[in-house]
Amino acid sequence: MSESETVEISGHLMDHGILSRVLDDIREYSGDYTIDRFDVGRETDDTSHAVITVTADDDEGLQRLLMRLQTRGVNMVHPGEAEVAATVTDGVFPDGFYSTTNLETRVRVDGRWLNVGNPEMDCGLILERDPHGTPSRVYTLPMSDVRAGMLVVCGAAGVQVSIPKPDRTAGSFGFMESDVSSEKPQAVLVRQVANGMREAKAAGKKVLWVGGPGVVHTGAAPAMVAMVDAGFVDVLFAGNALATHDIEASLYGTSLGVDLAMGSGVEHGHEHHIRALNTIRKEGSIRAAVESGVLTGGIMHALVTHDKEFVLVGSVRDDGPLPDVHTDVLEGQRAMRAHLTDVGFCLMVATMLHSVATGNILPASIPLVCVDINPATVTKLADRGSSQARGIVTDVGLFLEQLAVELVPEYRRS
Amino acid sequence: MSESETVEISGHLMDHGILSRVLDDIREYSGDYTIDRFDVGRETDDTSHAVITVTADDDEGLQRLLMRLQTRGVNMVHPGEAEVAATVTDGVFPDGFYSTTNLETRVRVDGRWLNVGNPEMDCGLILERDPHGTPSRVYTLPMSDVRAGMLVVCGAAGVQVSIPKPDRTAGSFGFMESDVSSEKPQAVLVRQVANGMREAKAAGKKVLWVGGPGVVHTGAAPAMVAMVDAGFVDVLFAGNALATHDIEASLYGTSLGVDLAMGSGVEHGHEHHIRALNTIRKEGSIRAAVESGVLTGGIMHALVTHDKEFVLVGSVRDDGPLPDVHTDVLEGQRAMRAHLTDVGFCLMVATMLHSVATGNILPASIPLVCVDINPATVTKLADRGSSQARGIVTDVGLFLEQLAVELVPEYRRS
Amino acid sequence: MSESETVEISGHLMDHGILSRVLDDIREYSGDYTIDRFDVGRETDDTSHAVITVTADDDEGLQRLLMRLQTRGVNMVHPGEAEVAATVTDGVFPDGFYSTTNLETRVRVDGRWLNVGNPEMDCGLILERDPHGTPSRVYTLPMSDVRAGMLVVCGAAGVQVSIPKPDRTAGSFGFMESDVSSEKPQAVLVRQVANGMREAKAAGKKVLWVGGPGVVHTGAAPAMVAMVDAGFVDVLFAGNALATHDIEASLYGTSLGVDLAMGSGVEHGHEHHIRALNTIRKEGSIRAAVESGVLTGGIMHALVTHDKEFVLVGSVRDDGPLPDVHTDVLEGQRAMRAHLTDVGFCLMVATMLHSVATGNILPASIPLVCVDINPATVTKLADRGSSQARGIVTDVGLFLEQLAVELVPEYRRS
Amino acid sequence: MSESETVEISGHLMDHGILSRVLDDIREYSGDYTIDRFDVGRETDDTSHAVITVTADDDEGLQRLLMRLQTRGVNMVHPGEAEVAATVTDGVFPDGFYSTTNLETRVRVDGRWLNVGNPEMDCGLILERDPHGTPSRVYTLPMSDVRAGMLVVCGAAGVQVSIPKPDRTAGSFGFMESDVSSEKPQAVLVRQVANGMREAKAAGKKVLWVGGPGVVHTGAAPAMVAMVDAGFVDVLFAGNALATHDIEASLYGTSLGVDLAMGSGVEHGHEHHIRALNTIRKEGSIRAAVESGVLTGGIMHALVTHDKEFVLVGSVRDDGPLPDVHTDVLEGQRAMRAHLTDVGFCLMVATMLHSVATGNILPASIPLVCVDINPATVTKLADRGSSQARGIVTDVGLFLEQLAVELVPEYRRS
Repeated sequence: MSESETVEISGHLMDHGILSRVLDDIREYSGDYTIDRFDVGRETDDTSHAVITVTADDDEGLQRLLMRLQTRGVNMVHPGEAEVAATVTDGVFPDGFYSTTNLETRVRVDGRWLNVGNPEMDCGLILERDPHGTPSRVYTLPMSDVRAGMLVVCGAAGVQVSIPKPDRTAGSFGFMESDVSSEKPQAVLVRQVANGMREAKAAGKKVLWVGGPGVVHTGAAPAMVAMVDAGFVDVLFAGNALATHDIEASLYGTSLGVDLAMGSGVEHGHEHHIRALNTIRKEGSIRAAVESGVLTGGIMHALVTHDKEFVLVGSVRDDGPLPDVHTDVLEGQRAMRAHLTDVGFCLMVATMLHSVATGNILPASIPLVCVDINPATVTKLADRGSSQARGIVTDVGLFLEQLAVELVPEYRRS
Repeated sequence: MSESETVEISGHLMDHGILSRVLDDIREYSGDYTIDRFDVGRETDDTSHAVITVTADDDEGLQRLLMRLQTRGVNMVHPGEAEVAATVTDGVFPDGFYSTTNLETRVRVDGRWLNVGNPEMDCGLILERDPHGTPSRVYTLPMSDVRAGMLVVCGAAGVQVSIPKPDRTAGSFGFMESDVSSEKPQAVLVRQVANGMREAKAAGKKVLWVGGPGVVHTGAAPAMVAMVDAGFVDVLFAGNALATHDIEASLYGTSLGVDLAMGSGVEHGHEHHIRALNTIRKEGSIRAAVESGVLTGGIMHALVTHDKEFVLVGSVRDDGPLPDVHTDVLEGQRAMRAHLTDVGFCLMVATMLHSVATGNILPASIPLVCVDINPATVTKLADRGSSQARGIVTDVGLFLEQLAVELVPEYRRS
Repeated sequence: MSESETVEISGHLMDHGILSRVLDDIREYSGDYTIDRFDVGRETDDTSHAVITVTADDDEGLQRLLMRLQTRGVNMVHPGEAEVAATVTDGVFPDGFYSTTNLETRVRVDGRWLNVGNPEMDCGLILERDPHGTPSRVYTLPMSDVRAGMLVVCGAAGVQVSIPKPDRTAGSFGFMESDVSSEKPQAVLVRQVANGMREAKAAGKKVLWVGGPGVVHTGAAPAMVAMVDAGFVDVLFAGNALATHDIEASLYGTSLGVDLAMGSGVEHGHEHHIRALNTIRKEGSIRAAVESGVLTGGIMHALVTHDKEFVLVGSVRDDGPLPDVHTDVLEGQRAMRAHLTDVGFCLMVATMLHSVATGNILPASIPLVCVDINPATVTKLADRGSSQARGIVTDVGLFLEQLAVELVPEYRRS
Repeated sequence: MSESETVEISGHLMDHGILSRVLDDIREYSGDYTIDRFDVGRETDDTSHAVITVTADDDEGLQRLLMRLQTRGVNMVHPGEAEVAATVTDGVFPDGFYSTTNLETRVRVDGRWLNVGNPEMDCGLILERDPHGTPSRVYTLPMSDVRAGMLVVCGAAGVQVSIPKPDRTAGSFGFMESDVSSEKPQAVLVRQVANGMREAKAAGKKVLWVGGPGVVHTGAAPAMVAMVDAGFVDVLFAGNALATHDIEASLYGTSLGVDLAMGSGVEHGHEHHIRALNTIRKEGSIRAAVESGVLTGGIMHALVTHDKEFVLVGSVRDDGPLPDVHTDVLEGQRAMRAHLTDVGFCLMVATMLHSVATGNILPASIPLVCVDINPATVTKLADRGSSQARGIVTDVGLFLEQLAVELVPEYRRS
């Protein structure tokens, strides 16, 4: 016997292909559908509205399909009340837990809607009640952080999401196309990213950068330093590699053996690399190395000097690592989450690992641009659920150079 | 005033371009050289021998150049005695510490040569003395594991390395060319990898696999299971992704939403993924899930059933992770090192992160083949110092399918 | 003052994202739209139907927008009659000529609908009248072949197109997903391509192959020979390179210096290459070289022996070329067009140039699979308008090996 | 019975790996060798000199090995006299013809050395005698252009080549490293390319550009126009695509549907594309379209206005083509050859097809830089024998933007 539910979705369903994907999802989850109503916007800018009855083989299948559809912004017409179950074991959700999206979410408990403050995909929803038993808060929590006794939302009932409204003001960042391409007029894209950052700053928000070592290898460190100095880098998420290569370049004028002054490269200047790590470990931290005068230039130096934040999270291929690196990846994820507050724009440059990691925890409402010479990085990010990601396939070094020229008038390559 | 040292190198210096790279290194380290003697092998298979005087601006520069040259197999003619210094701080080597290569290494202390048991690149050399003060052991130790009071070799004096002899028997693995190419007769390469594995097993050695989630996505899990069953997978190094996707495929018949039976794909079946993680976390471990009958198929199941070893190390982009995953990357590296004993062949498949991580700790004497559809993975490995790495740019799914047909006669795709 | 027209489209508008693209097109051509009616299929397999009024600034803009929309299968509700104009100059269409799609097309002249026999994109439509002035035929003609005095359809009036119906039978080729991915279970894809070929042969149709030199470099020539022998290659479109490398491999056992027996490669065995070209030129043609016993193996030999057709078209980077190569690219295009009759399946392997060239002239109704290790080839094909193209990003050598095992039971790699 | 010959080579044999490759070649051609003498340069900048006896199974094998070795700059110690044979058939060289390199070459006939004026790889050497029978000229000729009765050099006897001397002046173009890398400080590379062009112009030489449509797609047309205006583009080799997209952008403000002003892209604006072609065909030529005022901007317009040369050669995937396009590829190759005189620098941008085509005919003495976002283009060029090629893997649009800023002080992006 099959189970059904009536769902609805509003927005620019046609021109962004959203409804197609919704129907694809239903088929992929072995469900079936009937479109009950479809009010399509008559004019170009009108929103559409669809009401669909979805059917699955059993209730478990239906619940999972409903959760899947919520990643597209599809809600139940009659959401009802959220069901919760208590966690039995640390780090394990109850069966049938609601798996979150990165969309703005609210949950109905005891007849009241509670907003989820920190939307993040692939988490559980934890319900807190005050001493009187009144629901006081619902928040996302990753699986590894859940503790026995916590109340976790199960099934799709009582949960609603809303998709961000695309900004359609002419010339604004909202107009950037979503497809990945290496055949685009790059100068225009540079300007759009610059505008996105300026808008975030004007709104009192922070600009988050996520970077890989390619930032240093491509000779873009001076450009990035200029942007740190000018206030366009509030937080940096990176790994051991970016920071070490940046520091190595400052200490020895090389980065993994690439001679930045002459443009000639070597295979693997491991000796400089490992010695730079030892030097900073001796100082105790990057900040200590700046304060003791050992580290006098580069990106990390600029961040420390301007009291900007950075979160370095390690990986299994790291040498060293630097003393500032979180070697436990769960600790690292927690540190990254703690720095997402007030972020209004995110730029990812030359790193697949940290871009995906950041995409995993970033709300869909934060504009996100990913720049890489490798199209796969950009594609992967979108495929993982960061549907707001805009990809630019280009050379990272020249892109940052141009971005610095755009953002920092006094920046000129000498 | 400049400092000089006379060094020498033997081997197939010409036909593998080794001497060219040695001279390039000298220039890159701002050194100078005079070739004192060069006995070139007259016949095709003769070895050559070169004696070179290298010069640097000062002793520190000279020491660092000598260390760099050792990564090519270049030794001092008069190595002298190793100098050691005691570590002052946990996790920090003394200034001027000898930075290791992945070549076979010996160290001369108190007039005696001690072999370094576990060559690994970018480490320090720790000297142990017995209660009478007699040197008893020299071993490599990564920077993060050094403790105050340990004796560490400093400078290049007293250290000798030897490059592995290439095996030139016709038809053997040794003949595989070292350059990366996607335009190669792949069927021959499959057979060569199979032969390399058979030779390792025949010599009583272990076969180490390093794998990424692409193994599962490309539908190669059945082929890999067949090779586990047939005894060609002794150890697996991987991340959370390979194991989770493999388990997800067993539990739900999908992997990140790729429907393996029909060949159609979805964007991100996050819901299956996160639920598979929760299921195994509930069981407590992968082995527990196998024993309780929850997990009944796939690669991880085969490894557990055959009592094979696996080391899963986490990364910052992980969901979950599985309970078996080392979330601390330094712990993970230690676990990997502990499984290198008796490895006689290493196959890396579809992972840049774990391939580089394994390349970092693997002695140069272990044959190493890296298979990836992305040429950059293979190139990166060689550039990082794993000069023995042989790269095959091909489709991982079809490659493993062919390898299984080659290694396991009874394996046939149905 | 603006101009309007009412258009309509039927089909699976939602689940293939067609309607989204239609609306995107209107915006890109600076048009505007009102959706007058939208009957969405209620059930999964129902077709939808939309009626839209589109508006442009002037009639020229409207006509061009209407032509653009026809590439999506959008027709005018009231198509009216086709307007024709006579060509004035050889090789030049009249202004405002109708630019064709690759969809099935019919044209209304003097109140009668005439079917266009050979749909091809980016051509003009030529109207022929019989001696009594009655419209007798409408056919596509590329710009370079038009002659003064020919009657050419202008504007979008009187032209209708129809999009191919996707085949939804379970297990058939129609189910292959359209997105490009290197992370797919490749074995399933191999089987689907084999089924597509078998279906075409069963329907009495020809299988067209389009190949690049990678077929030979990857060692897949024996597999392809087996498929020629078994009747699965009716026509081959290629360039000078595939044929020369195949012949070079037969004459010298090498291909651009890749030693196929040992799997080792060289940089550029130009000497073999240029000598193989000279040898065949001396014989006068590939067929002559087969008949004189000079050429005794390989793909070209197999095609000649089985009286299969091939069209080789040259490019500016060719050496030689072989005597069979069309050095004039327009002549080459004509020769390719002449071989499209009765083609029921097209497989493109390892060539961007010839794949795009074939995509340009192939009707949208012919199933088309493109196999390449480079995702860009596959993407480009779809972007150029071959919307039926299915892409497989994989290793060409192993793919053809597997395809031969699937199609030719007696084929086994020795 | 085997045949032997003594050969020699001078130059920087070690630090560029030349000797290694020579010995590899010998093995690949199934030959054997004895190194008779090897005088290695003692100091860093000294040249080395090697004398080697090479052996092959028979004389034909030996001759072919000797020709192969000449591509490395290896000459016979006793070259003897060239042997010539008369061509019997048009377009076919005699058996055993000498296959040329792209190095400077001289040929000894009747006791005198004659310089080959136009070195080009993979050609034959044609000997002309004056009416008295005295050798008057030796020149390269491609296979397709040879005519019956011409005298063609056969075997390696009497032929000598010389490799270009690398320029080692600090800061000059000569210092650019030869390996392909996307991880290089790109700004330095931009400056080096600019210097290479300035040096060529200062020496009274021409700058040759080879370009693909990516130049237009990436929005770099204004930058390239600025460089044409400033005199840094003397000749352009391209295909139908670059010119058509450039003209389309001028006529309609789009390129294959990419809206250059807004940075948003469409799939395939075929309608603009095909209409732009028709417009120019109507005018008769690009120059005619400029003179009639139809074409008023873009790269092609700038070239015509400044009386710069361009050679457009067609390919099988062309639409149209433009009336200026050579549709016969052999005619196209001849037109390209005719424009190589006095070229002193060559920049290849965003095209594999035309880059390889130009590499095929370019003497090794002309500095050559290849810029592409796809590493394979750059690698392929070097593999095909253009050993002087320097590769830059970067974004073409930003690279040309930066190059224009470097070369043309008044050029500023508005």
